[in-house]
Amino acid sequence: MPKNPQGNKFKRSPTREKIHEIIFEADTPYGKLFDVVLLILIAASVLIVMLESVDYINIKYREIFFALEWVFTVIFTLEYLLRLYSVYRPMRYATSFFGIVDLLAILPAYISLFITASAQSLLVIRAFRLIRVFRIFKLGHFLNEGNTLLRALRASQVKISVFLMFVTLLVIIIGSVMYLVEGGEGSAFSSIPRSIYWAIVTLTTVGYGDITPATELGQFLSAVVMILGYAIIAVPTGIVSAEMVRDSRMEVSTQACRFCGAEGHASDADYCRKCGELLNEP
Amino acid sequence: MPKNPQGNKFKRSPTREKIHEIIFEADTPYGKLFDVVLLILIAASVLIVMLESVDYINIKYREIFFALEWVFTVIFTLEYLLRLYSVYRPMRYATSFFGIVDLLAILPAYISLFITASAQSLLVIRAFRLIRVFRIFKLGHFLNEGNTLLRALRASQVKISVFLMFVTLLVIIIGSVMYLVEGGEGSAFSSIPRSIYWAIVTLTTVGYGDITPATELGQFLSAVVMILGYAIIAVPTGIVSAEMVRDSRMEVSTQACRFCGAEGHASDADYCRKCGELLNEP
Amino acid sequence: MPKNPQGNKFKRSPTREKIHEIIFEADTPYGKLFDVVLLILIAASVLIVMLESVDYINIKYREIFFALEWVFTVIFTLEYLLRLYSVYRPMRYATSFFGIVDLLAILPAYISLFITASAQSLLVIRAFRLIRVFRIFKLGHFLNEGNTLLRALRASQVKISVFLMFVTLLVIIIGSVMYLVEGGEGSAFSSIPRSIYWAIVTLTTVGYGDITPATELGQFLSAVVMILGYAIIAVPTGIVSAEMVRDSRMEVSTQACRFCGAEGHASDADYCRKCGELLNEP
Amino acid sequence: MPKNPQGNKFKRSPTREKIHEIIFEADTPYGKLFDVVLLILIAASVLIVMLESVDYINIKYREIFFALEWVFTVIFTLEYLLRLYSVYRPMRYATSFFGIVDLLAILPAYISLFITASAQSLLVIRAFRLIRVFRIFKLGHFLNEGNTLLRALRASQVKISVFLMFVTLLVIIIGSVMYLVEGGEGSAFSSIPRSIYWAIVTLTTVGYGDITPATELGQFLSAVVMILGYAIIAVPTGIVSAEMVRDSRMEVSTQACRFCGAEGHASDADYCRKCGELLNEP
Repeated sequence: MPKNPQGNKFKRSPTREKIHEIIFEADTPYGKLFDVVLLILIAASVLIVMLESVDYINIKYREIFFALEWVFTVIFTLEYLLRLYSVYRPMRYATSFFGIVDLLAILPAYISLFITASAQSLLVIRAFRLIRVFRIFKLGHFLNEGNTLLRALRASQVKISVFLMFVTLLVIIIGSVMYLVEGGEGSAFSSIPRSIYWAIVTLTTVGYGDITPATELGQFLSAVVMILGYAIIAVPTGIVSAEMVRDSRMEVSTQACRFCGAEGHASDADYCRKCGELLNEP
Repeated sequence: MPKNPQGNKFKRSPTREKIHEIIFEADTPYGKLFDVVLLILIAASVLIVMLESVDYINIKYREIFFALEWVFTVIFTLEYLLRLYSVYRPMRYATSFFGIVDLLAILPAYISLFITASAQSLLVIRAFRLIRVFRIFKLGHFLNEGNTLLRALRASQVKISVFLMFVTLLVIIIGSVMYLVEGGEGSAFSSIPRSIYWAIVTLTTVGYGDITPATELGQFLSAVVMILGYAIIAVPTGIVSAEMVRDSRMEVSTQACRFCGAEGHASDADYCRKCGELLNEP
Repeated sequence: MPKNPQGNKFKRSPTREKIHEIIFEADTPYGKLFDVVLLILIAASVLIVMLESVDYINIKYREIFFALEWVFTVIFTLEYLLRLYSVYRPMRYATSFFGIVDLLAILPAYISLFITASAQSLLVIRAFRLIRVFRIFKLGHFLNEGNTLLRALRASQVKISVFLMFVTLLVIIIGSVMYLVEGGEGSAFSSIPRSIYWAIVTLTTVGYGDITPATELGQFLSAVVMILGYAIIAVPTGIVSAEMVRDSRMEVSTQACRFCGAEGHASDADYCRKCGELLNEP
Repeated sequence: MPKNPQGNKFKRSPTREKIHEIIFEADTPYGKLFDVVLLILIAASVLIVMLESVDYINIKYREIFFALEWVFTVIFTLEYLLRLYSVYRPMRYATSFFGIVDLLAILPAYISLFITASAQSLLVIRAFRLIRVFRIFKLGHFLNEGNTLLRALRASQVKISVFLMFVTLLVIIIGSVMYLVEGGEGSAFSSIPRSIYWAIVTLTTVGYGDITPATELGQFLSAVVMILGYAIIAVPTGIVSAEMVRDSRMEVSTQACRFCGAEGHASDADYCRKCGELLNEP
């Protein structure tokens, strides 16, 4: 009999347990099927939102979109209620990150019954259903790999923060200088914030070209900023690379064979790769 | 006497064997010569297709292009027939990836005899002859280096998939927010898919500038997205770098243990790391 | 009793010591509070400068901005005077980098009392107050991480200089060739410096699009430059990555041998690798 | 007495030896001075060429530029003649890479005496004087660092070639597909070469924006190409990083101490860092 986290032994109806297993666990065949179907539904509902925002498509298929939206809303509402019913602590789920996201996924449709205005905002809020897709990380090995990435990022978190702070100061200073150099009547560098926006566009090598230097001094400074950006982009890459190399190195164990002294065994090795003896006594 | 893969001993005519050797093998002088000549012909035929698509060149040299196209088609047809004749299992070749590509390389010319319309599509299909160039990987050390690259990419396949999935979700959410912020009458952010296109253009630092934020809030959000893209681009680079460093550090042999089937032994290993048996008989 | 760096024993008033502790040290609660409040004030004053440069905001809130500017100036003046009063060697502080920056932070307001013109320049000079934010590096672990980054950059300093020199030569040569190919009446490539500007914009993958090749030969050369830039961007990244991996692998201690002065010992070394003497007395 | 490379013992005049030492060697004070002065002259002469190409500057200072050009030409001619006079094998120098570059540095001025047309071409050829700056690599430690970079690049040469070949095939195929999708009357994708140019601009994340997809299918395909480019850019970076990490790792010797067995000594260590014994017997 499954236990709830508190280990209480009060009995729950088998149906409720079954629903819980299907909805919240991904190891059983039904649980997996449920997750896959749910992901497809979420993707479909977000696709509808996207198409709805395209004017000429919306005009054509308005009715179909309207109907589909309600179909998705009813399904997601049902799912939400079942989650509330089967979960061990309903309040905790309802106030959790995913609980709120699940609620936001169904609210817009109901709100639109009462308020007709700001349809656009509701459209976009519906797009946030996509966040629910992150539930996919419950599924098997995605979690592992995602974790490796996260671990590498988290390990270099402070380094990256220092780097981003430095970049922020840099773009403010570059933006101020360029405002002084290029600013003036009719210039694209019409204010310091706009110049900072330009500095970011340039330093990150995005380079829209909506704001470009017109004077020769401005172009010279831009060139310096670009070369700088070229060198600077190496820093976050170096940080993450070093972290990942360190991470992948750890998989070689530091163990030496007790018989022949050979080193460099893979961390999951059981026998010495040089003399064939058992590495660890049972 | 060479054997066919099935090991049957039925005799094949020496001519047929000779043709097979020239066309399918790259170790003999004639085989190498054949491959090099073929690569040049493919490159030339693709070059013709490209020039043909440039209007003012096409008007001038239409007759020459037409003649050359038939020369290439006849040569490639001959090659295709010889391959079919000399290969051990003609059907298997004809339905293989390269068999189909080889057929597609000659079909457009014959189709154009019957259908005159959609000349443009045929033009482009002919450009796919280029895929045949990948046969070059039969040649010596290209294969090795290509394999190292492929191995590094394959080893980080799941990490890269997780990363790309995350980027996809990110651009959809960024696109939706920007549609809400910048969208409206006469805005370049006229629909969510277009906003997502903008988000991808920005996050990958391509930055065409065909769609740029006009409002101040939009520019601020863009700046955040760019700095984000700056940090995010470090991730795939870190993944591949770590994989290549690992690859160059520990040459993992492709050998499997004869007893327990375990793989992933270091290239200088003598004993299986899982069952302790000798890997190679003396 | 705290000593000043010269170790003189003349007595300083306790108030003066207290002020010194609060302003110059970050370990005590008051010192930390002072630093945090100062950082917020600096950020706020820079934000005001930015908003002031936006025309329509400035027109609306001119009076408020004017008042706030004087509030900040008075606070920063007070801070500057207190620093001068409490520091052990006032002249040395006044002529240090941060001493000058601190002075520049308050000067513009006083200058504007006498000179009314060039308000824009004063505006921008005020933005340089931001440099004072670098004092944050006094705070705990930022320093550490910043140092790791700096060490990796400094270790690869010569390599990066050689690389930047090579890139400089490359863009001058590319710019000259493109001027020859694309230059002419009405072309965007109107001079060699402008062509070099284009070469930098392209090679760094910024790609504004304000200058683009119009001829076919020019487009072909651009394509070559881009692919080149693609390969070249790997070099600084590789340099920094290698340096950071090395840094994380082998923590080199900063210790020098007491006998022969050799440096660069591994952090777990007990004996000098050059003369064999004990590194640390027990 | 210095010998020429053939070891012949015929006497050369001491003046000639002295000139050879100054011009061709960088170790003596005069040799170093000569190199530095030469570098400055080259930089100055290239700067003049650049300024000369800017129309409004050229109109103003035409006479000064003309005079300076002849000053530089006379100096460089003198230098060329002295090199020819003092070198051991004049013909070998004259036909070497730098010999030809040195000649090209002075020819344009003399040619302009006879031919007045194509002044622009001569202008640009003069800019190639810059290549002479590479002589700087004769100077001390630049050579070392440049060599490290070159070694890393050369070691990954084949990998990078395979990568560039793959990228070339990719952009041709992407260009052909986009020509099929976006091509047509009035489209910016007017021919396959132009579409390939666009594909390169996009894949390398340069993104000029002079050619952008207009149809929705085209924008979708572009987005895929960009994400692809995002992942692909990781490959050359990974290659070079791995090579440089390997390069920097080699500096740790594989030697173990004969007395205590400790490993991980720096490659230039003489004494064991753990027990202080000599690592190598004399």
